[in-house]
Amino acid sequence: MKDDLRIDGERLNGRIAALGQVGAIPGGGVARLALTDADRQGRDLVAGWMRELGLAVTVDGIGNVVGVRKGREDGPPVMMGSHIDTVRTGGRYDGNLGVLAGLEVIATLEDAKIVTRRPLAVAFFTNEEGSRFQPDMMGSLVYAGGLPLEKALATVGIDGTTVGADLARIGYAGTAPVGAKAGVHAYVELHVEQGPVLEAEGFTIGAVEGVQGISWTEVTLTGQSNHAGTTPMRLRHDAGLVAAEIATFARRLAKEMGGHQVATVGALTMFPNLVNVVANRVVMTVDLRNTDEALLKDAERRVFAYADEVAAAEGVGISRRSLARFEPVAFAPELVSRVEAIARELGHEVRRLPSGAGHDAQILASICPSCMIFVPSVRGVSHNVEEFTSPQDIQAGGDVLLRLVCELAA
Amino acid sequence: MKDDLRIDGERLNGRIAALGQVGAIPGGGVARLALTDADRQGRDLVAGWMRELGLAVTVDGIGNVVGVRKGREDGPPVMMGSHIDTVRTGGRYDGNLGVLAGLEVIATLEDAKIVTRRPLAVAFFTNEEGSRFQPDMMGSLVYAGGLPLEKALATVGIDGTTVGADLARIGYAGTAPVGAKAGVHAYVELHVEQGPVLEAEGFTIGAVEGVQGISWTEVTLTGQSNHAGTTPMRLRHDAGLVAAEIATFARRLAKEMGGHQVATVGALTMFPNLVNVVANRVVMTVDLRNTDEALLKDAERRVFAYADEVAAAEGVGISRRSLARFEPVAFAPELVSRVEAIARELGHEVRRLPSGAGHDAQILASICPSCMIFVPSVRGVSHNVEEFTSPQDIQAGGDVLLRLVCELAA
Repeated sequence: MKDDLRIDGERLNGRIAALGQVGAIPGGGVARLALTDADRQGRDLVAGWMRELGLAVTVDGIGNVVGVRKGREDGPPVMMGSHIDTVRTGGRYDGNLGVLAGLEVIATLEDAKIVTRRPLAVAFFTNEEGSRFQPDMMGSLVYAGGLPLEKALATVGIDGTTVGADLARIGYAGTAPVGAKAGVHAYVELHVEQGPVLEAEGFTIGAVEGVQGISWTEVTLTGQSNHAGTTPMRLRHDAGLVAAEIATFARRLAKEMGGHQVATVGALTMFPNLVNVVANRVVMTVDLRNTDEALLKDAERRVFAYADEVAAAEGVGISRRSLARFEPVAFAPELVSRVEAIARELGHEVRRLPSGAGHDAQILASICPSCMIFVPSVRGVSHNVEEFTSPQDIQAGGDVLLRLVCELAA
Repeated sequence: MKDDLRIDGERLNGRIAALGQVGAIPGGGVARLALTDADRQGRDLVAGWMRELGLAVTVDGIGNVVGVRKGREDGPPVMMGSHIDTVRTGGRYDGNLGVLAGLEVIATLEDAKIVTRRPLAVAFFTNEEGSRFQPDMMGSLVYAGGLPLEKALATVGIDGTTVGADLARIGYAGTAPVGAKAGVHAYVELHVEQGPVLEAEGFTIGAVEGVQGISWTEVTLTGQSNHAGTTPMRLRHDAGLVAAEIATFARRLAKEMGGHQVATVGALTMFPNLVNVVANRVVMTVDLRNTDEALLKDAERRVFAYADEVAAAEGVGISRRSLARFEPVAFAPELVSRVEAIARELGHEVRRLPSGAGHDAQILASICPSCMIFVPSVRGVSHNVEEFTSPQDIQAGGDVLLRLVCELAA
């Protein structure tokens, strides 16, 4: 590969804009929920581009679409990709960027008449967002063998239909065998950060070290309703106070642990929720994330122990229920290092960071060396019609992807 | 008065039970909202008992009913009383006890053929609860000159009718001049505590020192919605965290101030209230009460200052709105001392305490020496069908009332 090879950022942004017209909603956003008619139109458009670029396109049983460009040798491909489904009020970049940048890498190589040693592949995986069907990252999960195809197809969504029925309806119940039978040499996903770090700190490229482990817990506190005027402080069993103590502790803990530990109490509902009545019940959530499983376990242990302690001191009952629990995923260290090095070679400010959101790459990481390249999200906004990443940053991210993929395929 | 004179607790409890049948609701409770048909029936019953006892009954322009028993001399009467309206799911004791115990004092004196030097009066004031028409304590407020009659009569309630129209409808738009033209020598109100202190600490009689001042503030916090995974702690503007800090501070402050300071965050609503989104808005209430106005002001100042400080540190906007503000009322110290002394003389455990709820006595306190006698509420429960005070405690409270009134009327 020539050192001055660059992607055509204008062409890539043109494809992003064109795909953004499918399921467009006011404000510049997109509603292309998985397996809807809009998703079908988006798939048709992107699969058409794949064919125009000469890729051999296959659709598997869960509707994952993979386009392969031959290499000078056979064998497992270097795969790029992401997803093209969106949330109900999504943006144009989340997922779409990784798929269309993969196509742009192919187009750039075509223009330069470069054929890599290994085959290249561009994939878009079904239902990454999980907005209509749970779990999210469904297509990549089935692809990597983490979820049986039959179970995925039988999943009933929020509209009462099954994944299998909707796949057939939109013509994407494919016949290709599911999964990477021949293996995948490596997987690289370019994605918008969906957080504020890169922009806030002046970086163009994020070398993603891994995906945070996630622990979601619902805590229910049961106190006693009492008159706010006639009940002395010492005789109270205030579920609201215990909830507030847990929320402030979670913040203190995250600060004290530092590193990549985050802690959020985003939902908290009080009963009876009246100005002059001590709360007799609170239902709240605690969202803990860390890139290190041992630290995440430690955070859980400490939050739960503190919650038990303050509840007992206040004479308030406490119960817990896990809403979700995923272990952290570490991306291949040698790939993370290469992202960092290539970004520097290309003159971009780069920092390592974890991903706070889930991505197909974390699923692919179970079957092949995988990594992600982040580009900045303006104001950290994502899952929102205002999601935006500048053309300059898209150019930068695409160039890093191009060079890394060429290296891996050489 | 003879030292061994006692009320007839059985007769008093009989009247409480009989009045509790008017507007009875399942579970032993009462729904006798002000100026409804049930209120009219209750008024007819109690006014009938007044007449049976030989009292001269008058109804004034706001519907307050006063029954007067002549003394050996003319002049301002010693007044007992309270209210007989209830909240929507109320108990049998709140208010009713003070009125019916007043009648029981009269009946006891009749039986003993004792005529006091000063006249005695028993009153029930209109709409103490404020459940249908605001403000609460309306009848006593008009009686004491704190609210013009015309304004009170024009008040539109939750059913769309006016106080004036409903008073006329139930036949209690009286013709007696409103207010205590001839003055009131002293006012004594026996009431259930509506809080847990007396029962929890093993006291039978509460000598009420005054009514707490009340400060209700609504605080609105405006932060920024961010992804709970991708937003580092240092870049957050978490309205939920600031709310939790305020709530825990309010508790610490009440504890530190001690005495009669109470602080409650009873209502707190988060937006968007999702497990994985940092709250961008919280609307919460802070209820502060103290018997000492200077201390109450100090509590307000400190909570507001702390709230401003934590909001600023988190980069969260804050605004405040006063929902209610009443200064504390102190009852006549010589009367409070007499309640304490008489209770001891009668062999009852007694303690001084403030009232955390509002009562007609705090309004009467602006026109004459006033005080209250509390008897225990089982489990502190009030404004609830399960409200209960034992016959023994009612006997004790009635006996203290009898002796204090005889002293004051001597």
